[in-house]
Amino acid sequence: MNSNQTFEVFVSPEGAPYRTGQLNLLHGTVKTPCFMPVGTLASVKAVSPDELEEVGAQMILSNAYHLYLRPGVEVVDALGGLHSFMGWTRPILTDSGGFQVYSLASMRKITEEGVLFRSHLDGSYHEFTPEKVVAIQESLGSDIMMCLDWCVGYPAPYEEVEEAVRITSLWARRSIASRKRDDLKLFAIVQGGMDRALRKRSAEELLELPFDGYAIGGLSVGEPHELMLEMVEEVVSIVPRSLPRYLMGVGMPEDLVEAVRRGVDMFDCVIPTRNARNGMAFTATGSINIKNAQFERDPSPIEPGCHCYTCKRFSRAYLRHLYKARELLVYRLLTIHNIYYYMRLMEAMRTNIERGTFEEFRREFYGMRQVS
Amino acid sequence: MNSNQTFEVFVSPEGAPYRTGQLNLLHGTVKTPCFMPVGTLASVKAVSPDELEEVGAQMILSNAYHLYLRPGVEVVDALGGLHSFMGWTRPILTDSGGFQVYSLASMRKITEEGVLFRSHLDGSYHEFTPEKVVAIQESLGSDIMMCLDWCVGYPAPYEEVEEAVRITSLWARRSIASRKRDDLKLFAIVQGGMDRALRKRSAEELLELPFDGYAIGGLSVGEPHELMLEMVEEVVSIVPRSLPRYLMGVGMPEDLVEAVRRGVDMFDCVIPTRNARNGMAFTATGSINIKNAQFERDPSPIEPGCHCYTCKRFSRAYLRHLYKARELLVYRLLTIHNIYYYMRLMEAMRTNIERGTFEEFRREFYGMRQVS
Repeated sequence: MNSNQTFEVFVSPEGAPYRTGQLNLLHGTVKTPCFMPVGTLASVKAVSPDELEEVGAQMILSNAYHLYLRPGVEVVDALGGLHSFMGWTRPILTDSGGFQVYSLASMRKITEEGVLFRSHLDGSYHEFTPEKVVAIQESLGSDIMMCLDWCVGYPAPYEEVEEAVRITSLWARRSIASRKRDDLKLFAIVQGGMDRALRKRSAEELLELPFDGYAIGGLSVGEPHELMLEMVEEVVSIVPRSLPRYLMGVGMPEDLVEAVRRGVDMFDCVIPTRNARNGMAFTATGSINIKNAQFERDPSPIEPGCHCYTCKRFSRAYLRHLYKARELLVYRLLTIHNIYYYMRLMEAMRTNIERGTFEEFRREFYGMRQVS
Repeated sequence: MNSNQTFEVFVSPEGAPYRTGQLNLLHGTVKTPCFMPVGTLASVKAVSPDELEEVGAQMILSNAYHLYLRPGVEVVDALGGLHSFMGWTRPILTDSGGFQVYSLASMRKITEEGVLFRSHLDGSYHEFTPEKVVAIQESLGSDIMMCLDWCVGYPAPYEEVEEAVRITSLWARRSIASRKRDDLKLFAIVQGGMDRALRKRSAEELLELPFDGYAIGGLSVGEPHELMLEMVEEVVSIVPRSLPRYLMGVGMPEDLVEAVRRGVDMFDCVIPTRNARNGMAFTATGSINIKNAQFERDPSPIEPGCHCYTCKRFSRAYLRHLYKARELLVYRLLTIHNIYYYMRLMEAMRTNIERGTFEEFRREFYGMRQVS
């Protein structure tokens, strides 16, 4: 469980917090900075595992809370674990469910022992403890497991944020103590709301424990962009450079560029996949809505020059027709393009960090979008 | 427009009406008996053109009525025709829209001139004439175009069926007269309800005209299975063996076996694709409903021994989970399996006809299903 084995830093320019590196995990290696498409229910919505590989996804995120409720951990276990169940051979990170309990469950009661909640599916009662959540993820066979944490909303009273930090640290200690498999990595989640001092306290308390990596949780919950980046900076400044830093649930392409610049190594977010299903496609010059009338007879691909399957094969006009006719194929085609866009963006950041041209890359990134 | 060029008979056993053959069309050849997956709106629901090729689809069916309303023929034309629009390079047959006007339009008024109807999408008024329907299909670039016909329901009064036969013949004559492209084939549609004499009259009237092939329309509209087969036999006995015979909108695997046995060469039906989206998968021993609790932990594929992508990669347990979670991927995976099943069934019939073992094949087909 030596974190040096989990993460290797490749290039880390003098005086800059950003770097490239590699995660060494049970199911393979992952080059960082990386973005994980979200497959909440053991499926990245609308695409197959093979398509994910083709677009260059190195690792995906799935969700212990969701899989625990449906199909149930025993079912996944009976099929040989999560990788075998869903036919994905590369690494998987599972979120613990802390955030889902916070955002989805219809009732939740948090005590020092754990969290009691009602399923968002059928209202049935369940309890998650730090130990149970580690056990679930060990059973799933997640390459990276996340500790159960207490995620507060925004805004939240100081006392609640402070209590969430205390409980999160308490649970982190019990998570470490309960883990049985050392071939799977375990990450802590830093809380602390939008309070720098509480973020610092949370990070420092968790750093006393031998975690394989550190996530920044409780962001992207409605706070201003600048405040989010301030919290990222605070946490990154405390987590040693030898350890991977993971910003959970973020975000838009601009968020990724800014967080990488501040030293974040890992991301996950539903934006590329969810927006695809809403007809939104990312391009270097900004996003387009495929429903727009201007694309009715447009023979060009979503993004000229893009090498994804969708752009190689289909026109905006056809995609617009499929979207307006609600043909199932369109959700897949837009999802493929958007994930490919995200994978290329991460790859471009890695390449430019290694070449020492990250700041030029960033200027060009914004220049293309005509933002600044 | 010599129909001998359109269709070649390969093997036609003495004393049996069934045969193998080949359709020679603008976008390639099609071995018969063949089944066309249905892509009503320029997309076979849930699958890509590449997946259709992989499962062995030789030709697909699309629909002039639907494409005329959405996205509009001008849009498809601006994108280079239907093949280019949807990215499918093999042959396409388009239905004329007669059946859709009959079954979907909210109002329709049939005169000798044509049919006035209101769109099922927005209630707007439109008129289809035989000439307009040929022009639409020539613009789409369909390898096989279908004449506008008058399809009656079941049961229907004798006078209505007789009038439908008369009008269908009248329109067929005008269709032939109006066609401009001789690189696209034009098929007539035999009507006549469930009346042998009217079927005979319809077929004979249409055979006076130089069509490239003959379809049997107005079946699978609610009549008993035996009655359908009786009508098929009547029409097949009249259409010369040198011409392709197409049974429209049929059907279940048993229907295909029985109609091939009676000399039908071509089929289309939404059953394999629609049933897939309802969780139903075809196998040699019958169909299964993937939702069933018995599959909860079943690690086997839908059909052991099946070589389709779905069966090679995923378990019944995973497919059941996806279906219950309404994950979009499952509609694709079940559709791939079902189309593959239909393609294999047609291939098995072709092979067995050529080997002279069709009757043995048929007995085994039913034996596997434990039906008789």
